[in-house]
Amino acid sequence: MPQADRLALGLDFGTESVRALLVDLTGQERGAAVTAYPHGQIVDRLPTTGEKLPAEFALQHPGDWLASAGRSVKAALKKAGASADQVIGVGVDFTSCTMLPALADGTPLCLTEQFRGEKYAWPKLWKHHGAVAETERINRLAAERDEPWLPRYGGTIGLEWFFPKIYETLRNAPQAYEATEVWLEAGDWFVWQLVGGSACDLPRSTCQAGYKAMWNAATGYPSREFFRALDRRMEKVVQDKMPGRLLSPGEAAGELTPAAAKQLGLQPGTVVSVGTIDAHAGVPGAGVAEPNTLVMVLGTSSCHMLNAREERMIPGVAGVVEGGILPGMFGYETGQAAVGDAFDWLRRTVGARDFRQLDAAAAAIAPGADGVLAIDWLNGCRTPLMDGRLKGGFFGLALGHEPAHLYRALIEATACGLRWIVELFADAGVPVKKLVATGGLPHHNPLLVQIYADILGKPITVHPAKHGPALGAAILGAMAAGKQATGFSSAAAAVKAMAAPREDIAERRAKIVTPQRAASKAYEQVYRQYRETASWIAGNGQMHHGVTETRRASEFEPRRR
Amino acid sequence: MPQADRLALGLDFGTESVRALLVDLTGQERGAAVTAYPHGQIVDRLPTTGEKLPAEFALQHPGDWLASAGRSVKAALKKAGASADQVIGVGVDFTSCTMLPALADGTPLCLTEQFRGEKYAWPKLWKHHGAVAETERINRLAAERDEPWLPRYGGTIGLEWFFPKIYETLRNAPQAYEATEVWLEAGDWFVWQLVGGSACDLPRSTCQAGYKAMWNAATGYPSREFFRALDRRMEKVVQDKMPGRLLSPGEAAGELTPAAAKQLGLQPGTVVSVGTIDAHAGVPGAGVAEPNTLVMVLGTSSCHMLNAREERMIPGVAGVVEGGILPGMFGYETGQAAVGDAFDWLRRTVGARDFRQLDAAAAAIAPGADGVLAIDWLNGCRTPLMDGRLKGGFFGLALGHEPAHLYRALIEATACGLRWIVELFADAGVPVKKLVATGGLPHHNPLLVQIYADILGKPITVHPAKHGPALGAAILGAMAAGKQATGFSSAAAAVKAMAAPREDIAERRAKIVTPQRAASKAYEQVYRQYRETASWIAGNGQMHHGVTETRRASEFEPRRR
Repeated sequence: MPQADRLALGLDFGTESVRALLVDLTGQERGAAVTAYPHGQIVDRLPTTGEKLPAEFALQHPGDWLASAGRSVKAALKKAGASADQVIGVGVDFTSCTMLPALADGTPLCLTEQFRGEKYAWPKLWKHHGAVAETERINRLAAERDEPWLPRYGGTIGLEWFFPKIYETLRNAPQAYEATEVWLEAGDWFVWQLVGGSACDLPRSTCQAGYKAMWNAATGYPSREFFRALDRRMEKVVQDKMPGRLLSPGEAAGELTPAAAKQLGLQPGTVVSVGTIDAHAGVPGAGVAEPNTLVMVLGTSSCHMLNAREERMIPGVAGVVEGGILPGMFGYETGQAAVGDAFDWLRRTVGARDFRQLDAAAAAIAPGADGVLAIDWLNGCRTPLMDGRLKGGFFGLALGHEPAHLYRALIEATACGLRWIVELFADAGVPVKKLVATGGLPHHNPLLVQIYADILGKPITVHPAKHGPALGAAILGAMAAGKQATGFSSAAAAVKAMAAPREDIAERRAKIVTPQRAASKAYEQVYRQYRETASWIAGNGQMHHGVTETRRASEFEPRRR
Repeated sequence: MPQADRLALGLDFGTESVRALLVDLTGQERGAAVTAYPHGQIVDRLPTTGEKLPAEFALQHPGDWLASAGRSVKAALKKAGASADQVIGVGVDFTSCTMLPALADGTPLCLTEQFRGEKYAWPKLWKHHGAVAETERINRLAAERDEPWLPRYGGTIGLEWFFPKIYETLRNAPQAYEATEVWLEAGDWFVWQLVGGSACDLPRSTCQAGYKAMWNAATGYPSREFFRALDRRMEKVVQDKMPGRLLSPGEAAGELTPAAAKQLGLQPGTVVSVGTIDAHAGVPGAGVAEPNTLVMVLGTSSCHMLNAREERMIPGVAGVVEGGILPGMFGYETGQAAVGDAFDWLRRTVGARDFRQLDAAAAAIAPGADGVLAIDWLNGCRTPLMDGRLKGGFFGLALGHEPAHLYRALIEATACGLRWIVELFADAGVPVKKLVATGGLPHHNPLLVQIYADILGKPITVHPAKHGPALGAAILGAMAAGKQATGFSSAAAAVKAMAAPREDIAERRAKIVTPQRAASKAYEQVYRQYRETASWIAGNGQMHHGVTETRRASEFEPRRR
């Protein structure tokens, strides 16, 4: 088959739907399709029994993943006018930590007769917030025991992570915990379904394991002693209930089984990459394979990732994982818990139908929003304070201020939060040399990117990929297919060939937004004020008051819709 | 004439219109009418020349006051079905400091051929903000010289006051200053027009002089030395350009001249009281003549007044004037610069047409607004910080908060600001024993009054007067008419007879709102947080940044529309 006919498939599993993206080996999109999950997010009632779910619950139906992926792939192939045998590799990215209990043969526990009515046996979506007490207990115990893995996560783990979710099931439905033979990430489960094989061989992603399950290449998962101290019943959770082998995204997990090939409309034997987290797939998807480039995935929340040759423990950085993003480098993950979500909150609050008027009016206001200063912690502060109880605010308000002042101040606040993160890296000896923006926001909001460049005082490359994570997944699929199929001798070569900005290809022409000197200067004061105000709020119990601590304590997790 | 036929007339001069209120000696309304000023507020162009006015200008036309008052009185008499000879006394309240330069015969300077085109020769409305630099200079000089009158005003005088406005004219139009024979308050000018007489006898109100012109019964106006130090040309401003005699509101200024009687449709010889400030007329208008009762006039801004037997210098209290509100007591004035205005800002900001939904939704939220805390300084802080540059804010915001949370938090913030004022009095040895609410807000907003009672932890009497200041003015008119005409042997007797709440008269039935114990308890924390946050903002230059200091520096004056 000529090189030009070869295609890579990226499957991008989101919260509501799955996208299939077919690209050729120059990264050119050939066909794409999105299919919503029939059950969507399960937040109201359990589909099997109709049981009303608690407010903190967010589940998914494992059948949806397979069925919707099949529909998406077939539609994408059709749009591409391509045949199944053109597809040389499949990559998968998934929300995380979305996880489930299964039997040794891969059957999700919630699809067994015995546990179909047990809500704790269902896949928990990343945003499921049931494990508040469990997370607190894990964090307290880890701090007391001075667990060596804790500093890698900036000193705190999140309540949306893997072990809190397991522990929650153990405490609330011990029979379901006991009956579980395999606890695993949904991304890993899906890849396992594609490539088959016994549970002992199931390919687990270092990305999910490293960022969400406190796994480390050198030391593995937290120790048996730790889990015993947590709860005697969990002592051997890793040994007994987490079989498999750890592989990096871009490494081959296996080949499509005939059954899986049929379900997806592909050829049996097609190579499948190990899965990755959706946000992290955005790094190759943004054409970035070199170290010290911050890839900013700007969406409802923002995830900022960086590869580097150095491993540093940085307080407040959610994770550093060797090979966690791309093989051979340390991948750092940081985030801001409310970005697009915060803007949308403001839009709703001021009663605007959409952002058109707000954008235009905010663009007409000078840097500094005429004295209005915002703190963007409407969903807590992720990096660097890792405190979901923190709250946002507006300062400097006068009667003459209009909704657009609040909106502009909020954009500026998220930019200040980002600058804080960049300075955090630099201070720890991991300099940020280049900035690449991707995700939904930078494409729709030139004002935002300009403000970000001005406040950071650095140029920002806006990567043109419309669907960065799906493209990243496709690149991982191509990498897994190997040099013989693709001609790419390295991960960097694959990323460069398929996603790096290129002036000569219209749809890969990146936009570089440079800082405006006068604005950057004006923002120095704004940034100083942001940091001072942030310090005051963080050091002051008062912003925590009021509402149920337990719910709030957790709402600082990264999100992607 | 039988007692029951005797009427008192109150004339209430606002920013846009004048209200005439006819009441009998039981305070019963017999007729009322409002007439807008033909020229309204003059903020755009000078009527004579069409000259475009600077943004900080706000003028009025003296001809409007007479013409509109005449129309209102005649209409009120007609509605009352009353004849002119039933009116035994006239009282006048006026916005303040609204002031003007005049000739010795009372002719406003702006109505002379020479100065009709000179904008600095026109009456300056209370909200005219042209004297920023002049006010700063006066405050600095007074502090340097340790002027004895400064502590009576909490250490700062306002840019809307009397001498800053004179000084502004001197500096910008020295010929107009030179040509002026009488500088006076508009309220005093109006009363002078009613009663006639030479400039040497013109009756000036201790209320306006005390609260706006740094006058004191014991020591008079600021000294010649002070004015010389300010500007040599102003050395003898008091001696040369401020003739007249100082009288308390409720004392007789004189009797209607035939010309004035004709203009108003009244009988020559009718007694006229010395004028008063509109807000201060609200004290008798709310039926309050006893000491240590705080009368809260709640409107776009709030003015809180208190009579007491003690004279105390209280830092941050805008003025203490002997006989300033009622004869024989020390009148204290305090204020909050944005109340109804702040709520209206919020309503506009959240795109609500009116307050109906906001009120209903806010009432359904528990005390503490689910963790949202506001600082109500959207127009600066008047009492106690006397700093117009201070700004407001919202704290504790999360994605789940709705517009009604912001609204409720803002109401709670104004209540906290009020509690701060009450504590300020108590700490200075002037206890607040009773609270009476009047003005537009308490009648329309039961939620607000309940929150105020809960946060203050004290019952609030909502006085039923629909037009408190006009009723207060009418009472002053009756007081001036004397015991023979009214049978009232004292100010207290007049106030009690004409305005005190009475269960047996439907329209004087006051509503007493008592604090709810649980809410009061919950608010202890909110109030503590309000004070802590207010301290932080006030102690932190950052909330001043941005916009033109000069405009903002001044926007903390009390307002009434």
